[in-house]
Amino acid sequence: MEKIKRFILNEKDIPTRWYNIVPDMKNKPLPMLHPGTRQPLKPQDLYPVFAEALAEQELNTTDTWIDIPDEVREQYKVYRSTPLVRAYGLEKALDTPAHIYFKNESVSPVGSHKLNSALAQAYYCKKQGLENITTETGAGQWGTALSYAAKAFGLNLIVYMVKISFEQKPYRRSLMETWGAKVIPSPSVTTKAGQKIIAANPTYKGSLGTAISEAIEVATQTPNCRYTLGSVLSHVSLHQTVIGLEAEKQMEMAGEYPDVVIGCFGGGSNFSGISFPFLRRNILEGKTTRFVTAEPASCPKLTRGVFQYDFGDEAGYTPLIPMFTLGHEFSPAHIHAGGLRYHGAGTIISQLLRDGLIEAVDIQQLDSFKAGILFAQTEGIIPAPESAHAIAAAVTEALKAKEEGKAKTILFNLSGHGLIDMTAYDQYLSGKLSNYSLPDEEIANNTAKLEKII
Amino acid sequence: MEKIKRFILNEKDIPTRWYNIVPDMKNKPLPMLHPGTRQPLKPQDLYPVFAEALAEQELNTTDTWIDIPDEVREQYKVYRSTPLVRAYGLEKALDTPAHIYFKNESVSPVGSHKLNSALAQAYYCKKQGLENITTETGAGQWGTALSYAAKAFGLNLIVYMVKISFEQKPYRRSLMETWGAKVIPSPSVTTKAGQKIIAANPTYKGSLGTAISEAIEVATQTPNCRYTLGSVLSHVSLHQTVIGLEAEKQMEMAGEYPDVVIGCFGGGSNFSGISFPFLRRNILEGKTTRFVTAEPASCPKLTRGVFQYDFGDEAGYTPLIPMFTLGHEFSPAHIHAGGLRYHGAGTIISQLLRDGLIEAVDIQQLDSFKAGILFAQTEGIIPAPESAHAIAAAVTEALKAKEEGKAKTILFNLSGHGLIDMTAYDQYLSGKLSNYSLPDEEIANNTAKLEKII
Repeated sequence: MEKIKRFILNEKDIPTRWYNIVPDMKNKPLPMLHPGTRQPLKPQDLYPVFAEALAEQELNTTDTWIDIPDEVREQYKVYRSTPLVRAYGLEKALDTPAHIYFKNESVSPVGSHKLNSALAQAYYCKKQGLENITTETGAGQWGTALSYAAKAFGLNLIVYMVKISFEQKPYRRSLMETWGAKVIPSPSVTTKAGQKIIAANPTYKGSLGTAISEAIEVATQTPNCRYTLGSVLSHVSLHQTVIGLEAEKQMEMAGEYPDVVIGCFGGGSNFSGISFPFLRRNILEGKTTRFVTAEPASCPKLTRGVFQYDFGDEAGYTPLIPMFTLGHEFSPAHIHAGGLRYHGAGTIISQLLRDGLIEAVDIQQLDSFKAGILFAQTEGIIPAPESAHAIAAAVTEALKAKEEGKAKTILFNLSGHGLIDMTAYDQYLSGKLSNYSLPDEEIANNTAKLEKII
Repeated sequence: MEKIKRFILNEKDIPTRWYNIVPDMKNKPLPMLHPGTRQPLKPQDLYPVFAEALAEQELNTTDTWIDIPDEVREQYKVYRSTPLVRAYGLEKALDTPAHIYFKNESVSPVGSHKLNSALAQAYYCKKQGLENITTETGAGQWGTALSYAAKAFGLNLIVYMVKISFEQKPYRRSLMETWGAKVIPSPSVTTKAGQKIIAANPTYKGSLGTAISEAIEVATQTPNCRYTLGSVLSHVSLHQTVIGLEAEKQMEMAGEYPDVVIGCFGGGSNFSGISFPFLRRNILEGKTTRFVTAEPASCPKLTRGVFQYDFGDEAGYTPLIPMFTLGHEFSPAHIHAGGLRYHGAGTIISQLLRDGLIEAVDIQQLDSFKAGILFAQTEGIIPAPESAHAIAAAVTEALKAKEEGKAKTILFNLSGHGLIDMTAYDQYLSGKLSNYSLPDEEIANNTAKLEKII
């Protein structure tokens, strides 16, 4: 029988529902708190910031399955199902008995998984009659995805783009503009949050936390406008489960089931997406799959952060979120995996980690690029620097399998391609990049400032 | 019944043979001539330059079907079948009764159709025991594809990259280097051909013709080395027929047959690939599909060139090729569709055009970008500036169908994406690009220099 390389679903088999893991969790995530009253957040508290349907989804702890609206599913068909690929080339290069699979989310027209939630969020905003939306973007993947989605559903969009990325990635800006978005480097003078930060530090190159503050401020002060976020929150993870739900069917086509599932980790959206449907079967069916997050050593909130209530943004506009965090004032090193430079993790992920249902590893920058190049040369696809962290973790698992002489089925999510990030590869190839571990002292200083709510 | 957006073949249905159109042509192409003897070229004449199997394929006029080697077909599975997509979004925006389909070759890991032939060529070179190959690249699509293919089959590769592209497209260079190729801007001092051109014009920004001369010179003077070419030649078109052969099956899945098939035109590889399998059915079954090449108005060899024997490169190292040409000394305007800046067309295409079996239209640069943006905003994919020419021609056909109130099935080839060409979109969006038609006088002057062999 011919070996099959790529598993692709018929369009009718693209999922019709997203999976909400919260009802299946034995220990529920702690509630987010209203920053003023310190009471558990109600959906209405979020209405000024998010579309109402998204606020409801965010706090939905009872419905396991949420219907994907037809309009969103039609848009998914532009690129879904994404292929599940058997990485024969990588296996051979590693000489491993492991079977390595990856879910290729890089085939979306924006080059990453971010579109899965962008389309959903733009749809619900439009359905509510909104005309304008705002967001922030770090590496540019989310901003690009939302630009596409805003155009698809006829919304005006302003993107606050972390200044360092704005300068390093002019192609990203052009992409967003091609889809009609307005892109502003953050910090900017267009918001109070931005003005304050610029006054304190005029050469500051920005952070996701700052850009979020700016985008929220504009959303809440512009008529008929709401804010959208590309990661961290539970409704974003919900939309991303389309990845894992497809992968579940595709692994079945391949006649295998994963022993370990891996995703890189910034705010959690792609890791949640690939993992939760399989984690469901650990919870309900007693399967024993391991789930591994791969985060950068320069931003190690899951491996070395503290669990505490913290803000999602720099200025403190968001609710208080129970999260593993490095402190919301943490200013990350300028590693090239810009999408992983975020100080915290969402409520669900944080609870799963506390309960030992998922694991976390940290990856050094040079190891991520080494793995990325190996992947490019064996599987053909140049991974996003973010995704290269997942590849590095998969390589480690595959080599462990080799050492132990054990067959093992590894599944990782290739969250995006790196075609817009070639500057990073160029710097790596010319020896200009280095490793960086966040010092203990910096973590201690930042997290010491957090109010002790729990 | 649910509308299907993308048609994808099972891996077992990926073609096992390429289609050679020459045996089916009533009027065969005129022979290529040895530049010294002026006698029709024999495969052996090409052995010093090309791998022997490729030289045989180049001059094969008898075998209609050529088996795709298993090793190549395994590599095809990394990205094939590419989707056939129904462009519902574009149809709606144009309010046309036409059904528009496109074959999405942009999903290949290198972002274009070029990989279809690169893999075949690298395979045959390796099989012959070669260790080194050379090539040229204009826009960078071919060089990128061959870098990937050389790595896949374990060959060393030197790419001569047209200098203007080398400077404008640093990401392209990084891509090629990531796959292990050595990239040299052309003209360079590494060859006699390059030295001569630099001496005459020190600031010359290069052309495909010059880069070809350099790559051939190095290939013929390096031990265990051959040259490879990404377009124009018949064996390249042969490999690209995998596009049309898949599309034929996929159109059948869609229950339709194209009334018109469109491809952009540089040297002919993607147009040949999408067209020849359908053209076969015009020839053998009396179908009446139209075939339209879309070339830039700045490089109009098919619409306004002369049919004559001419060289394929600037220095005159190649055989004499019977072609529609603007003269091999033609120095093209620096439009952004770098892959379409070539002075001539291959022997098969030229004969088909003489026989009225295919048509040619020229497209202005601004019209191509306008169509490209419309496509990006309706179908989500940012097309390569080259492919945008095919889209512009498809839009024209769709609007004609609307005027005539006729349903019509249009198929075009999306040869690649534009993610590495965002500078071009940026310039278009900021109003910095303009139209350019090649003046009659320049065509007359260049072609007057050609020796009159026919």
